[in-house]
Amino acid sequence: MTTVPEAAPTRVPTVREQAVEARRAGRVLGTLPTEQKNAALRAVAASLRRHAAEILTANALDVEAARAAGLNDALIDRLTLTPQRLEGVAADVDKVVTLPDPVGEVVSEVTRPNGLKVSRRRVPLGVLGVIYEARPNVTVDVATLAVKSGNAVILRGGKETVRSNAVLVRLIGEALSQHGLPPAAVQVISDPDRARMLELLRLDDLVDAIIPRGGAGLHRFCVENATVPVIVGGVGVVHLYLDESYVQDEAGIESACELIGNSKVQRPSACNALDTLLLTPTSARLALPDVARRLVAAGVELRADPLTYELLQSHGIAAVPAQEDDFGREFLALTLSLKTVAGLGEALDFIALHGNHTDAILTRDPVQAELFVQNVDSAAVMVNASTRFNDGAQLGLGAEVAVSTQKLHARGPMALTELTTTKWVVRGEGQVRG
Amino acid sequence: MTTVPEAAPTRVPTVREQAVEARRAGRVLGTLPTEQKNAALRAVAASLRRHAAEILTANALDVEAARAAGLNDALIDRLTLTPQRLEGVAADVDKVVTLPDPVGEVVSEVTRPNGLKVSRRRVPLGVLGVIYEARPNVTVDVATLAVKSGNAVILRGGKETVRSNAVLVRLIGEALSQHGLPPAAVQVISDPDRARMLELLRLDDLVDAIIPRGGAGLHRFCVENATVPVIVGGVGVVHLYLDESYVQDEAGIESACELIGNSKVQRPSACNALDTLLLTPTSARLALPDVARRLVAAGVELRADPLTYELLQSHGIAAVPAQEDDFGREFLALTLSLKTVAGLGEALDFIALHGNHTDAILTRDPVQAELFVQNVDSAAVMVNASTRFNDGAQLGLGAEVAVSTQKLHARGPMALTELTTTKWVVRGEGQVRG
Repeated sequence: MTTVPEAAPTRVPTVREQAVEARRAGRVLGTLPTEQKNAALRAVAASLRRHAAEILTANALDVEAARAAGLNDALIDRLTLTPQRLEGVAADVDKVVTLPDPVGEVVSEVTRPNGLKVSRRRVPLGVLGVIYEARPNVTVDVATLAVKSGNAVILRGGKETVRSNAVLVRLIGEALSQHGLPPAAVQVISDPDRARMLELLRLDDLVDAIIPRGGAGLHRFCVENATVPVIVGGVGVVHLYLDESYVQDEAGIESACELIGNSKVQRPSACNALDTLLLTPTSARLALPDVARRLVAAGVELRADPLTYELLQSHGIAAVPAQEDDFGREFLALTLSLKTVAGLGEALDFIALHGNHTDAILTRDPVQAELFVQNVDSAAVMVNASTRFNDGAQLGLGAEVAVSTQKLHARGPMALTELTTTKWVVRGEGQVRG
Repeated sequence: MTTVPEAAPTRVPTVREQAVEARRAGRVLGTLPTEQKNAALRAVAASLRRHAAEILTANALDVEAARAAGLNDALIDRLTLTPQRLEGVAADVDKVVTLPDPVGEVVSEVTRPNGLKVSRRRVPLGVLGVIYEARPNVTVDVATLAVKSGNAVILRGGKETVRSNAVLVRLIGEALSQHGLPPAAVQVISDPDRARMLELLRLDDLVDAIIPRGGAGLHRFCVENATVPVIVGGVGVVHLYLDESYVQDEAGIESACELIGNSKVQRPSACNALDTLLLTPTSARLALPDVARRLVAAGVELRADPLTYELLQSHGIAAVPAQEDDFGREFLALTLSLKTVAGLGEALDFIALHGNHTDAILTRDPVQAELFVQNVDSAAVMVNASTRFNDGAQLGLGAEVAVSTQKLHARGPMALTELTTTKWVVRGEGQVRG
C-alpha cells in the first residue's frame, strides 16, 4: 500500500490556466516581507523531513517505473532519492532561508535637477518556467529559490519524476499555505506531454522567463520554440591553457597535474569539467607526460592532436588520435582532448571559436594572465584555479538555479539576485516635461 | 549630380558573413581603452558635420522615393534630415563621448575562504542586432552607443532609409578606421529584404542580442522568429490613477490638469504618453470637468466609460462612449480613454491586467503612494509626475538605445550599461575543488 495520490477525476488545467494562477500568486508573493517567506520555507524543510516516508515511497515507484522502462543507470541514479539525499535537499532549503533577500533593494537613487527623485528598486521577475529532467531535488531547489526571491514558478520535470514531484509540490504548497503564501506560487505541469511544454514556452503574456536545465537538446528546443525569453546555460566547452611559465619546476608540474586532474576528474559529468587542454610544444614537453599519466590512472581517455599524440607515444602513455570533432566538444565524461597551440594568441583564437562557459589559464606570468582575462569572453575566466569553481556555491552565491552561458540578464551561476529585475520609481511634486 | 554611391558590382555579403566580421570586430573593440573609443566618436561627429551636404543629398533621395511610394507624412517626417536635425545628431554623438564608459567596471569582488579572488567585470555584450524603421538618426545614435560600450552592431533600418544609411555607415566606418577601430564594428544590412532580417534573427551563434525599435508588429515578429535573445520594449499601455486626495483644492486640480495634459499631449506619439486615465467617482466629480476641458482644448478625443461619459455630457464637454477595446490599448495619438474604478485596489487590478510600461498615481496620501509603488509591476512607476519622464535622458542616463518593457536583462530606458554584461574572473594559486 502506498500513499501516492490517485489521478484526480477532475480535468487537468491547461498550462495557460496554471500560468494565470501563477501570475496572481506572484503578485501576492512579490510584496511579502522576507520573514514571512522565510517562515514558509522553514515549514517546507520541516515538511520534507516529516513526510520523508511518503516522498521516498513515491520516488521508489518512479524508480521502479524507470527501471521497467529501461532507463540507463546514470539517469536512475539522478532520479533516486535516499533518506540521506532527502535530508540534503531539506538542508539546502534551510540554507536558502539564511541567504539575503534581494527583493526591495534600492539599486540606485538620484535627485534630478528638476527635483524628481529617481530610484531603481529590485523586484521579482514574476513568473518563472523551469524545465528540467530526472532530478526530483531540482523541484525543491528551484521552488525554494523562486519563493525566496518572490517569484511564482511553473515546474516541468521529466516524466520519470511525476510521482515524486506530485508529492513534493503538494507538500510545498501546504507549507506555503500555512504561512499565508499562495500555494499556486509553486505548480508542476503534471502531464509530461511535450505539447504542454510547448504551451509553456509560448505564454509570453504570462511567463517572464524560461530556465531550461538539461542537455544541449533541451536548450535548443527552448530557444527554437519559445516566445518567452529563455536563459540558456549549463552547456559549453571548457578549456585550460597551460603556459610554459607554470611548469618550470617540479612544484609547478605537480600543481598543473592537480589542477588539470581536478578540472577533469572531480566530477566529469558537470558542465564545468574540462574538455580540452591547450598546450604549447614546450609546456607539452615539460609537463604533459606527468599530467597524462595522472589522468590515465584516473581513467581518462586522452584524444591527442598529432604533436601531443607523438609525445605520449614516445613515453608509452595511452592515447588515441583526436578527430576533428573532438575539439569544440563537451564530453561530460572521462575524456579529454589535447591541442597544441603556438602560444597565447593561438589559444585565445581557439577559445574564441569554441569557448563560452569556463576557460582557465595556468601561468606564472602576470602579463599573460591579464591578457587571458581581458581577451577570453566566457562566463567565467580562471587563473591558476580549477575550472570546477564555476559554481554558485563555490563563487559565494550560496545557491544557484542554473549556470547561464548567454550574455543577456545573467552570466555564469544564477542565484537569487538573478531571479529579480528592477523597476524605476519616480517621485515628483507635480513636475511636467518641458 | 549626387555623390550617392552606385550599387557595388560585387556580391552582397550574407548576414552570416557580416556577423562573422562583426564578431571579429567586437573582439577588438571590447578591449580598447575608453579614450580611443572616444576619439573615434569625436571623429564621427566631425565627419557628419563635414559631410553634411552629402548626407542631406542622399537623404533627399530617400525622401523623394518615399513620397513617390506614397508613404504617409508622419513617416516622411521621421525619415527627413535637415541641417538642424543633422547637427542635433552630431551633437548627440559628442554627448555620448562625455558619458562614462561602463566597460571594465568591477561589479563585485570578494576573497573566498579558500583564498580564491572572485570578481565580476563589466564587458560588452559582443554583437548587437538593431532593427528599426524609417529614422536615419537612429543609425547614428545606435552606432555611437554600441561603439562606446565596446559592442559591434549590425543595423537593419527600414528600406526607406537605404541611401541615407549607406552614407552614414560609410562615414562612421571611415572615422572608426582613422582611430584604429575596425570599421566592421558598425555594419548595415543594405538589402531590405525581409529574409535577411529573418537571417539576422536566427544567428544565435554570432549575435548576442536583438533590439527592435518600432511598433508592436515588429516586436512580435522578432519574438516569434528570433533564436537570438530579443529585448522587447517601447510598446505598452500607460495609465494614470487620479486619487481624490490630489484634487481637494484649486491648486490640486490645476496640478492634475497640468500633469495629465503633459502626459497625454506633450508628445502623443511617444510610448510613454498617457493612454488611460483612471478615476474614482469622487475624483472624477472633483476634477474631470477641468481636466477634460483642458484636454479637449488641446485636441484630445476622450473615450469615456458610462459614468465619466455621463459626467462630461452633463458639463457639455465633448466625449465619445468608450468601446471595450479602448482599454488596454496604446493610442500613440491624441486619444485618451477614461475609466472609473472604485478605488486604489481596483486601479491596481486594472493596471496589473493592462499595464507594463509606465503607470502613475497622483495622490497626497503617502500610504496610497507607497501601495501604488509596491504593487504596480511596470518598467516605471511615477508618483505625482508626468508619465513622459520614463525616458533615458530624463531619468539621468544620458542617452537610451531603447525602452525595454520586458523583465530580463534591462527594464525601462536602456543606456550604455544595459549594453554590457559581466564575466566572472577567478584568480587562484593552485586551488582545486574538494
